[in-house]
Amino acid sequence: MKPTKNFASDNNAGVHPEILKAIMEANHDYVPAYGDDPYTERAVAKFREHFGAEVEVFFVFNGTGANVLGLQTLAGSSAVIAPETAHINCDEGGAPEKFTGGKLLTVPTEDGKLTVAMIEPFLEAVGNQHHSQPKVISITQSTELGTVYTAAEIKAITDFAHGHQMFLHMDGTRLANAAAGLGCKLSEISGEAGVDILSFGGTKNGLLLGEAVVVFKPELARNFKYLRKQGMQLASKMRFISAQFERLLTEDLWLKNAANANQMARLLGAELVKIPGITITQKVESNGVFAAFPRQIIPRVQAEYYFYVWDEKASVVRLMTTFDTNEEDIRSFVQVVREAVNVHSPGPPLG
Amino acid sequence: MKPTKNFASDNNAGVHPEILKAIMEANHDYVPAYGDDPYTERAVAKFREHFGAEVEVFFVFNGTGANVLGLQTLAGSSAVIAPETAHINCDEGGAPEKFTGGKLLTVPTEDGKLTVAMIEPFLEAVGNQHHSQPKVISITQSTELGTVYTAAEIKAITDFAHGHQMFLHMDGTRLANAAAGLGCKLSEISGEAGVDILSFGGTKNGLLLGEAVVVFKPELARNFKYLRKQGMQLASKMRFISAQFERLLTEDLWLKNAANANQMARLLGAELVKIPGITITQKVESNGVFAAFPRQIIPRVQAEYYFYVWDEKASVVRLMTTFDTNEEDIRSFVQVVREAVNVHSPGPPLG
Amino acid sequence: MKPTKNFASDNNAGVHPEILKAIMEANHDYVPAYGDDPYTERAVAKFREHFGAEVEVFFVFNGTGANVLGLQTLAGSSAVIAPETAHINCDEGGAPEKFTGGKLLTVPTEDGKLTVAMIEPFLEAVGNQHHSQPKVISITQSTELGTVYTAAEIKAITDFAHGHQMFLHMDGTRLANAAAGLGCKLSEISGEAGVDILSFGGTKNGLLLGEAVVVFKPELARNFKYLRKQGMQLASKMRFISAQFERLLTEDLWLKNAANANQMARLLGAELVKIPGITITQKVESNGVFAAFPRQIIPRVQAEYYFYVWDEKASVVRLMTTFDTNEEDIRSFVQVVREAVNVHSPGPPLG
Amino acid sequence: MKPTKNFASDNNAGVHPEILKAIMEANHDYVPAYGDDPYTERAVAKFREHFGAEVEVFFVFNGTGANVLGLQTLAGSSAVIAPETAHINCDEGGAPEKFTGGKLLTVPTEDGKLTVAMIEPFLEAVGNQHHSQPKVISITQSTELGTVYTAAEIKAITDFAHGHQMFLHMDGTRLANAAAGLGCKLSEISGEAGVDILSFGGTKNGLLLGEAVVVFKPELARNFKYLRKQGMQLASKMRFISAQFERLLTEDLWLKNAANANQMARLLGAELVKIPGITITQKVESNGVFAAFPRQIIPRVQAEYYFYVWDEKASVVRLMTTFDTNEEDIRSFVQVVREAVNVHSPGPPLG
Repeated sequence: MKPTKNFASDNNAGVHPEILKAIMEANHDYVPAYGDDPYTERAVAKFREHFGAEVEVFFVFNGTGANVLGLQTLAGSSAVIAPETAHINCDEGGAPEKFTGGKLLTVPTEDGKLTVAMIEPFLEAVGNQHHSQPKVISITQSTELGTVYTAAEIKAITDFAHGHQMFLHMDGTRLANAAAGLGCKLSEISGEAGVDILSFGGTKNGLLLGEAVVVFKPELARNFKYLRKQGMQLASKMRFISAQFERLLTEDLWLKNAANANQMARLLGAELVKIPGITITQKVESNGVFAAFPRQIIPRVQAEYYFYVWDEKASVVRLMTTFDTNEEDIRSFVQVVREAVNVHSPGPPLG
Repeated sequence: MKPTKNFASDNNAGVHPEILKAIMEANHDYVPAYGDDPYTERAVAKFREHFGAEVEVFFVFNGTGANVLGLQTLAGSSAVIAPETAHINCDEGGAPEKFTGGKLLTVPTEDGKLTVAMIEPFLEAVGNQHHSQPKVISITQSTELGTVYTAAEIKAITDFAHGHQMFLHMDGTRLANAAAGLGCKLSEISGEAGVDILSFGGTKNGLLLGEAVVVFKPELARNFKYLRKQGMQLASKMRFISAQFERLLTEDLWLKNAANANQMARLLGAELVKIPGITITQKVESNGVFAAFPRQIIPRVQAEYYFYVWDEKASVVRLMTTFDTNEEDIRSFVQVVREAVNVHSPGPPLG
Repeated sequence: MKPTKNFASDNNAGVHPEILKAIMEANHDYVPAYGDDPYTERAVAKFREHFGAEVEVFFVFNGTGANVLGLQTLAGSSAVIAPETAHINCDEGGAPEKFTGGKLLTVPTEDGKLTVAMIEPFLEAVGNQHHSQPKVISITQSTELGTVYTAAEIKAITDFAHGHQMFLHMDGTRLANAAAGLGCKLSEISGEAGVDILSFGGTKNGLLLGEAVVVFKPELARNFKYLRKQGMQLASKMRFISAQFERLLTEDLWLKNAANANQMARLLGAELVKIPGITITQKVESNGVFAAFPRQIIPRVQAEYYFYVWDEKASVVRLMTTFDTNEEDIRSFVQVVREAVNVHSPGPPLG
Repeated sequence: MKPTKNFASDNNAGVHPEILKAIMEANHDYVPAYGDDPYTERAVAKFREHFGAEVEVFFVFNGTGANVLGLQTLAGSSAVIAPETAHINCDEGGAPEKFTGGKLLTVPTEDGKLTVAMIEPFLEAVGNQHHSQPKVISITQSTELGTVYTAAEIKAITDFAHGHQMFLHMDGTRLANAAAGLGCKLSEISGEAGVDILSFGGTKNGLLLGEAVVVFKPELARNFKYLRKQGMQLASKMRFISAQFERLLTEDLWLKNAANANQMARLLGAELVKIPGITITQKVESNGVFAAFPRQIIPRVQAEYYFYVWDEKASVVRLMTTFDTNEEDIRSFVQVVREAVNVHSPGPPLG
């Protein structure tokens, strides 16, 4: 029998039972649509507990929506500096360009993380009317490669940004996993580190659907509600998104979910590395494991488990864990990998 | 005690219990994200049962998203002809203009319904390079004023559109109510009447969230999936939208919900008209009642029930019913109205 | 022999000889492209003489470009309030919507002129997240109907705009004609009356090609040069636009050209009104004459002279005069009209 | 005395005398605006002589306008593959992204020229809804590095494009120089080699201002005139652009101008290479010379002549020649360079 879980993405998982319960509990009575309801009020209050009393919070449907609206607010049709691997560059179908009209200026990285040294060369364009003007730096936390920026690393970039009249946008679709990995509060690696606008992910951490845009400076939030509507991201029955977020931020459910995913990723990495011929190519700092697999075993493992080949040339696969991955899931998967390796290199005993 | 229901909008209601059940039942196992899952496959099959085997169906988050992507597909940045009262013109925050770059050419109507005679003058612009070229006619079924186009009325407009190299877009956020009102199949007043692209509403008919774009000509659907992503309308855990639509289109739940709402609207209209000083200003053909109220009673009634004043000058209010409005809700509301009228015109006995 | 001049538009004329001379004189030596040249420096200095030392000036190719970039600067994708007859609404092919993504909110007028009373109803949308937010009021001076706002009328609108956190944009494609008509300085009916950004027309007043965007508040000009490039309106051999403007603003050439056009329009109006059956439908305050012609004479006159029917239903024609229309042109045209009228109503003597 | 010419760009030159004469000759009588005039008719006929009877031609203001409208026509908001050095990527201020909403997918090259092998990897994105879909390949002829594609090289790319449902866009701002360099007709390296839409440059080859969009397939031209207006690129007094193009394409003026510029570039390259310490870094195939200069001489030479440092790190400068560069200009410049080199390496005699 095929396993029912896979390692393709944290959005292949379903909804955390507590979240689903919150949805059901929100389903009585009539309440005003579009966010003028008590569920939304309470959810925003929860965000302020976690991110600071001054933040403005706007719920949207998905991560692309959250990112694009954040970038529109900060950059308009000016340019955004981002790592080449950024979700906004690779996996949003050109939504940022379409909506903002701006250009993405990208730079290759080893580990998905920007540094000030990588950003500096883009300053050459500043003041030259022939070039898109860089106005925003966008980083992802945790990154698309499973790595994590420390608070100090973020601070270095936000200081640079603000010192050059630029803003810092954070795609925090997996901010919870980064905070869990670092053992810090959500605010320490966002607003307190100088982030201007954050996309805070819910869907990948156990929600049915829903992301939040957290704006750390009130003046940047002034037009956001109009922009959200114009950007097709205003939910009519918003209470059902809000109720999920209220629950996620209550009794540390966000942390439990993320911590479990991270722990399973560490276990997965630790087990895989024991298998001859397999190497871990990125630090396992959140809920993703990037591993170089012997090329010929990949189809065999994919016959059992759904996951993505990240880098065809280097034969690197991406394995994502989730809030409900468990040790048994890991051990079963590792066993399949081990057997596939054995089949292909039967010679010396593999221990 | 204040009543818990209101008449402000069909999206102030919650989720139909059967729909919520379908969501819960979809919450086990891992499935591929973004629509490559069995729930979506089954939901699309249901749409083909209702709308024809040839249709392509794309689930999106909300009505604005559905409309804007449909208009982008059909019009690009050319112009769209629509009634002045169209949701795309009045209530989408300029999203159509922002995303498509096109202009809306609007015309006043008595009842929210376009006719060929209203459209003809816009043909003057055709071929003139200084003017936005009209390429799409957009109608709403049922209209924003609760009225309904017959199949023949739609056919007249689609014939005109196609005869002039234009497309017909239908905002069918309440198509179910129109079909229930006319006693016809969904297809009779959409694809079979010549509609090119339809926004089929779910949220206002008992879903938690979700709309469907139904494309009646395959060649128009070719790029839609890329456009949906670029338009920030691709749900990652799509199964939870699909499962709702599968249920909605099964055992006529869509029809039961819509028929109940319509019946309650008719009852509401019939009861209100008995009250001296109140007139019904639009035919009650779906789930909305538009009534001229004595100006002074409105605040008093609004103190008990949440609803919108549609036309401040004419003192016309809009009252929407839903899948779970019941007779008791209607009678209680009418009683409040009646009392408010009595308070303000206590003189002659009101019967 | 057919006359070589027509009354269709002021851009059917050629280039004023002095302007052409300025172009020729600019054609020696190499100078830096894109505006970093002495011609542009001198032309900007001329603008500051006329409009104030603080203004920033940007040359662009055409009126649509000037208007769209001004609106983008002031409104972004928010809404713009304008008269229904505004060039930005009727004759720019939807360029404002395409580039800014914003909506135009239009209002019918008798004479092409906005008043505060017409604007006030649009304030209802303010603060409502479902509606495009009005952020700019755009007026045309002189209007598309040949009428002119007095400085006081403009002031009333700019005061209202600024009192409601809105900006005032002026399409001044014929500002010269308005100033000539009012006998005032260019600045009195623009910056001094509170205008925020002005499109100052050159092409219709004798230039080969070229418009100027005059920004009256430096902070609004900060990003304009990047926007001009992004808006495809940056000329490489800019000296040839600048040299024209330098000449236009020297020795009152702008005024002479505009005054001649206005005077000819007044003469034309005065002569036409003597012909039985012809009425002048708008005040002749600049260089356009709007006249109701007996319907049947129009083809006969158009056989001799090229001009536009402005309002088909009302049989109103638009007749534009230019910097080089002369009395002989007017008298010849009037003679043709008179004969056409005689042919069609030969009965009673017309004397 | 400082020299009056420079080597910064071909648009630092003025207007060819014959072109200016054509402008002056077009300045009599009134003609309809916006292209419905005999000058435009004759200019289009000239284009058909050169590019084939079937082409549609649209005059616009500048190269960015020509490129952006061509890309909009071919790609909409889909992606465009181009070399990293492409003008559309580096020097148009993000105009393509702003207007089309599409993404540029760029690839580094040695010499500014794309090859099929560089394009192939982008096909991975095809069919994947998360990725911008590549629909256009854009090449520049001659390239931004002064190199030239042969007809066969272009044919290889257009065949590949058409074999993969993509279009070929050519930025031919210096197509004349390429044709002059190859000794071929303009059509051989554009339409006959499979190009779908061409931006044909005028300004850099002696015009005051003006570019032409040449559409080789009539069905691609159907909406172009509306798009040109919407893209703010429709000139009202179009005759003055048309008259220039008519002259440019008459009696081989385009070729004489381009051939002179090319010849001067070859001479410049040949002379520079004789100077110790200077190397030519790109083949001199059109009117640009790219040369590595000893870093310390650059300021000294720039004190006399205006030109750009192309690559700061490699100390490579770009030197552009024009229709009116002459041998004396070259020899004077080379002399300045030689002296600057001598000053900095005075040791051994330099011959």
